[in-house]
Amino acid sequence: MNNKIKVSILGASGFTGRELIKILVRHPYVDIDKLYSRSYEGEDISDVHTSLKGIVSEKLIKPSPGSISADSDVFFLALPHTKSMEYITALSGSDRLIIDLSADYRFSSPENYERYYGTKHLDPEGLKKAVYGIPEINREQIKGAKLIANPGCYATAVILAAYPLVKEKMLESSVYVDAKSGISGAGKKLNSEYLFSKRYENITPYKVNSHRHMGEIIEYLSMVTDKPWDSLVFCPHLMPVERGILANLYAKIADNLKEEDLRLIYRKHYGRNSDRNSDRNFGRKEFINILDEGMFPQTKDVVHTNNCNIGIKYAPRTGDIVVISAIDNLIKGASGQAVQNMNVALEYEETLGLV
Amino acid sequence: MNNKIKVSILGASGFTGRELIKILVRHPYVDIDKLYSRSYEGEDISDVHTSLKGIVSEKLIKPSPGSISADSDVFFLALPHTKSMEYITALSGSDRLIIDLSADYRFSSPENYERYYGTKHLDPEGLKKAVYGIPEINREQIKGAKLIANPGCYATAVILAAYPLVKEKMLESSVYVDAKSGISGAGKKLNSEYLFSKRYENITPYKVNSHRHMGEIIEYLSMVTDKPWDSLVFCPHLMPVERGILANLYAKIADNLKEEDLRLIYRKHYGRNSDRNSDRNFGRKEFINILDEGMFPQTKDVVHTNNCNIGIKYAPRTGDIVVISAIDNLIKGASGQAVQNMNVALEYEETLGLV
Amino acid sequence: MNNKIKVSILGASGFTGRELIKILVRHPYVDIDKLYSRSYEGEDISDVHTSLKGIVSEKLIKPSPGSISADSDVFFLALPHTKSMEYITALSGSDRLIIDLSADYRFSSPENYERYYGTKHLDPEGLKKAVYGIPEINREQIKGAKLIANPGCYATAVILAAYPLVKEKMLESSVYVDAKSGISGAGKKLNSEYLFSKRYENITPYKVNSHRHMGEIIEYLSMVTDKPWDSLVFCPHLMPVERGILANLYAKIADNLKEEDLRLIYRKHYGRNSDRNSDRNFGRKEFINILDEGMFPQTKDVVHTNNCNIGIKYAPRTGDIVVISAIDNLIKGASGQAVQNMNVALEYEETLGLV
Amino acid sequence: MNNKIKVSILGASGFTGRELIKILVRHPYVDIDKLYSRSYEGEDISDVHTSLKGIVSEKLIKPSPGSISADSDVFFLALPHTKSMEYITALSGSDRLIIDLSADYRFSSPENYERYYGTKHLDPEGLKKAVYGIPEINREQIKGAKLIANPGCYATAVILAAYPLVKEKMLESSVYVDAKSGISGAGKKLNSEYLFSKRYENITPYKVNSHRHMGEIIEYLSMVTDKPWDSLVFCPHLMPVERGILANLYAKIADNLKEEDLRLIYRKHYGRNSDRNSDRNFGRKEFINILDEGMFPQTKDVVHTNNCNIGIKYAPRTGDIVVISAIDNLIKGASGQAVQNMNVALEYEETLGLV
Repeated sequence: MNNKIKVSILGASGFTGRELIKILVRHPYVDIDKLYSRSYEGEDISDVHTSLKGIVSEKLIKPSPGSISADSDVFFLALPHTKSMEYITALSGSDRLIIDLSADYRFSSPENYERYYGTKHLDPEGLKKAVYGIPEINREQIKGAKLIANPGCYATAVILAAYPLVKEKMLESSVYVDAKSGISGAGKKLNSEYLFSKRYENITPYKVNSHRHMGEIIEYLSMVTDKPWDSLVFCPHLMPVERGILANLYAKIADNLKEEDLRLIYRKHYGRNSDRNSDRNFGRKEFINILDEGMFPQTKDVVHTNNCNIGIKYAPRTGDIVVISAIDNLIKGASGQAVQNMNVALEYEETLGLV
Repeated sequence: MNNKIKVSILGASGFTGRELIKILVRHPYVDIDKLYSRSYEGEDISDVHTSLKGIVSEKLIKPSPGSISADSDVFFLALPHTKSMEYITALSGSDRLIIDLSADYRFSSPENYERYYGTKHLDPEGLKKAVYGIPEINREQIKGAKLIANPGCYATAVILAAYPLVKEKMLESSVYVDAKSGISGAGKKLNSEYLFSKRYENITPYKVNSHRHMGEIIEYLSMVTDKPWDSLVFCPHLMPVERGILANLYAKIADNLKEEDLRLIYRKHYGRNSDRNSDRNFGRKEFINILDEGMFPQTKDVVHTNNCNIGIKYAPRTGDIVVISAIDNLIKGASGQAVQNMNVALEYEETLGLV
Repeated sequence: MNNKIKVSILGASGFTGRELIKILVRHPYVDIDKLYSRSYEGEDISDVHTSLKGIVSEKLIKPSPGSISADSDVFFLALPHTKSMEYITALSGSDRLIIDLSADYRFSSPENYERYYGTKHLDPEGLKKAVYGIPEINREQIKGAKLIANPGCYATAVILAAYPLVKEKMLESSVYVDAKSGISGAGKKLNSEYLFSKRYENITPYKVNSHRHMGEIIEYLSMVTDKPWDSLVFCPHLMPVERGILANLYAKIADNLKEEDLRLIYRKHYGRNSDRNSDRNFGRKEFINILDEGMFPQTKDVVHTNNCNIGIKYAPRTGDIVVISAIDNLIKGASGQAVQNMNVALEYEETLGLV
Repeated sequence: MNNKIKVSILGASGFTGRELIKILVRHPYVDIDKLYSRSYEGEDISDVHTSLKGIVSEKLIKPSPGSISADSDVFFLALPHTKSMEYITALSGSDRLIIDLSADYRFSSPENYERYYGTKHLDPEGLKKAVYGIPEINREQIKGAKLIANPGCYATAVILAAYPLVKEKMLESSVYVDAKSGISGAGKKLNSEYLFSKRYENITPYKVNSHRHMGEIIEYLSMVTDKPWDSLVFCPHLMPVERGILANLYAKIADNLKEEDLRLIYRKHYGRNSDRNSDRNFGRKEFINILDEGMFPQTKDVVHTNNCNIGIKYAPRTGDIVVISAIDNLIKGASGQAVQNMNVALEYEETLGLV
């Protein structure tokens, strides 16, 4: 009847589910098929996410690994880790595109998964086939993939900031990452730490050098170079904002370089020579902006977008570098990148639904 | 070459200008033509609004009343009051559609304008032709109009909440309106009252019963009934949020009614019988949601949308009523309604660019 | 050994408990004796309230109605309603001063308590003896009292704003109260409605015309006049601030008065003729400030203080009045007023610990 | 008539002036004498800082270097840099205690001042006599001093976090400091960067590795060791909170140490062996808390106090260390430390007015 694809979401009642819906409603080639929720069976999605009232009305279906309808062309899994494996194992063998927003398929080996998540991996075969989907780095691998592991929010911000330095083997010290996240990163978890009264007027470091996303950052960045790399110090913070991650990377590289050369290296890797001298440009073509000298990213510029802005400061005397990246944790750090991955996998224009 | 219309914005460097750009970039039948700014001549719009970086790149042009290019089909004027009159007078005579987001054409008489804005009106002829554009109430008048006065943000929230009561002549007391607005309503004005340190952790009433928007509310609601109406008490507040208006209307109507009947009256006027038993609905058709019993609007549900949610509470013993409406002050209260007005005037589908 | 009184707190682990500690540590005649908590037995108070680290260190004791040490001179009960009754019944008969911050002793009759709280009152005798403690109105009754019911936070703000109008029999319409509260009013309750992600960038009405504090407002204001009064419409809101209540009262009184006369009436009742022409004044003497013409209270001016600021606007043509009061919900609305009540009851200087 | 000292404030209309007043009103041995303001001559201090209404009422006096009354025993200068020098030169020769909150006397040489502040120093003699006042490090120097340079807010947080590492010569890499500050650090400056709409829902790095406070940090920490030290990378951020600084220090020290030994070193330098096993402690004695293993500071725990909380994380494999300190920028980072310096200089109990 039409040439649209049918897309279903498992875990539609969470924040990343809600953002997926908002994006997919705008995607010209997508029909939302079914919305599944383990906790809100039978409720209307617009009663669960009241901000969807007047935009979407659809009853939520309770999923079970055996009961997922085979009709959809694409499945987004916005489920907690370990739950994703159960569903993906059940769906495997079909030819559908599966995009998993959990951590379950982000590692190359069951051992690494178990090391960081403390639980046995149930689908080692699936793990081998999964592609870690960070399109600005590995677009070619994603094309035609059937199972895509969507990166974590912190991992996206840190990998995009660090990748050119690791790839070019420029690092001469540990990489110290000070990351700041909005509270939506915690999802809807009912934990007293996420109460307004705890978060407001507060800046809170947590899981200092022990956050799970360190695993996928270390593993992915080790893979892009032949020199194993694990010198990451990582300190995340909860900030009293709803959305946004700002990741500051501090490290020593060689001294006596020129800051502008570093900017060129980043632009070379991310495919844009300048964000300024571009042609007249209504409706963007690329999501990563390497900012000009003296400009640094702030979260407000990227929230509610799929963009990643990156700024660079270099101290030639000591060779110290500061690289700062900013993303929306729910979009480029989750649902936006997931749709971007879908677009790349299905060879649609990469920005559909995302501008 | 294509069948798109050319749209220009005067005052592109303000908040409503920025929101217009974001909406129009998504509108399938619009090409943005020229962006004018009196203060940022020659700068790129994405350096003025850094959140547009990667989305739009375009040099700002300094306007003067005589120099506006005649090429565009539609002009949005996001200028301060009194400035709009100067440009609209200069543009008059052409067949273009002009949508004015200032207060200059919101009154039916120069006298009323002068009463509330303390300055003489320069274009009494234009004033006669202008249509006050609040599509859910006067859609038919807007169709084909050439000069549309886009309502004020508070006025939109209050008129939508009060209109059915006034139209049906139900009011038996003054109408007390307690309105709460996000700080973006003040635009980019550099006033110490809008500093973060003044607004954060603060709830501040201001212009108590003396805000200029009272003028257009009183005038418009008097016109929809044959019984002159001016019993408005209006107390606006600055709230420490970026966006959103919540307007609470308190009044006495007849006692011994049924609350559900009031809801039916509102739905009759705004064209939707229920927001709940609607058919499957991906991509909305109407912007006003009359909420079910016991449900009340909150600003978070409508910010970043063109929606207006309305809730009703009635005390049958005394006949007192509470009606609460919520909108995004920059979208339904400004740029979104402006594009909605454009869609209606040009007989496009009313929701284009807005979902 | 010294002439200080010994003060114990039941419910030290809640927000009002924390505020009581902060105030009492500064009170020159108080030694904190025991801190009780039903949920955090054995933990140090500075681990429960980490903001007390370096200020107070003391193990929490699990209370039971029979086990409260008889040694203290004063008990503050910062317990949930129904729990207070159990402890107060057990403590009765002694000569200690008990200040109850729950709702249990705020009503004059068991019937009214049951009507608003839906549960039977267990101590009707205690109820008869209890004094509702709002010192600026009934200071004389509080002196020497042994059981003081500390008013609710909304009730304090509304009663202080409405009392002169009710007492002087000036009201000619229902009283419409639009109240806005910071989230700390919800205490530490682990409810998804109080998550940062729900409250931030949000303005939310709740319990529209059905909040329990309406009971004590109606009852107390009915008692201060011989004309029964119950024409209250009350709409509370959750605002994204930590502290503060702003209560706006709208009503019709007689027309053709002078606004300044209203201000004089308020100052007469609250004992200060002017907040402006006072003598040089380092260290305040009174907590209620009736603001001058054109000045209105904002929450930021009163948070972290025991003050209540009140502003008045009058429309002589229609006789409509707007009265706005602002308090800190945890201080004047709870723990500060509780210590003020202690000071009055024990005939200390009323401001000790509170400036 | 009494044994109180007379204290005057120059620059009473700024944020640090306001905080000084709030603290000094509680100080048992202080009478506030005169309040000076260059911009608000003749206004009442409670109209300038409306949060002081009901607390302090006093007319502001316009100062000039020659006109400052000789009557006061202590002067706090809360003036912009360069202005302080003018007044202090005029006051010099008297025996009064002067505490300068500006940057004018924080450097040991006019050259360093000029390097970081870009302007010539007018009082090189005064500079020689001034003591940089950070009592937990140099209490003995402060005793009896007549001119105290009160440290900058960032400098306080960073020096307290770094001092034991520098003093013990433990650093083996550059020190990377990622600092996050509340907006009140900008004072009342009317700059569009400090508007609510710019700061809210935003995390913004600024002056990346070029902030002026780097000067006093480098100079002071170089002086405490015989090994010149200048390997500081410093990235400050504006966070959407009102108060608080969190400073994260990242560096490499020796590997194979024990984290607990680091904690002991910090406690040795700051004089408290444990914040936990202390005796019963109502009313604190020291302001620095070295937190136990696994505990990290958050700004909410220290705002509105003069405390500095410090947490430590150590990675024994690589020798990398994370030290995190938190202060209230207006209190320990400005006015509180200023009063603490006064208490030490005059040999009062160090905590007077500050608990």
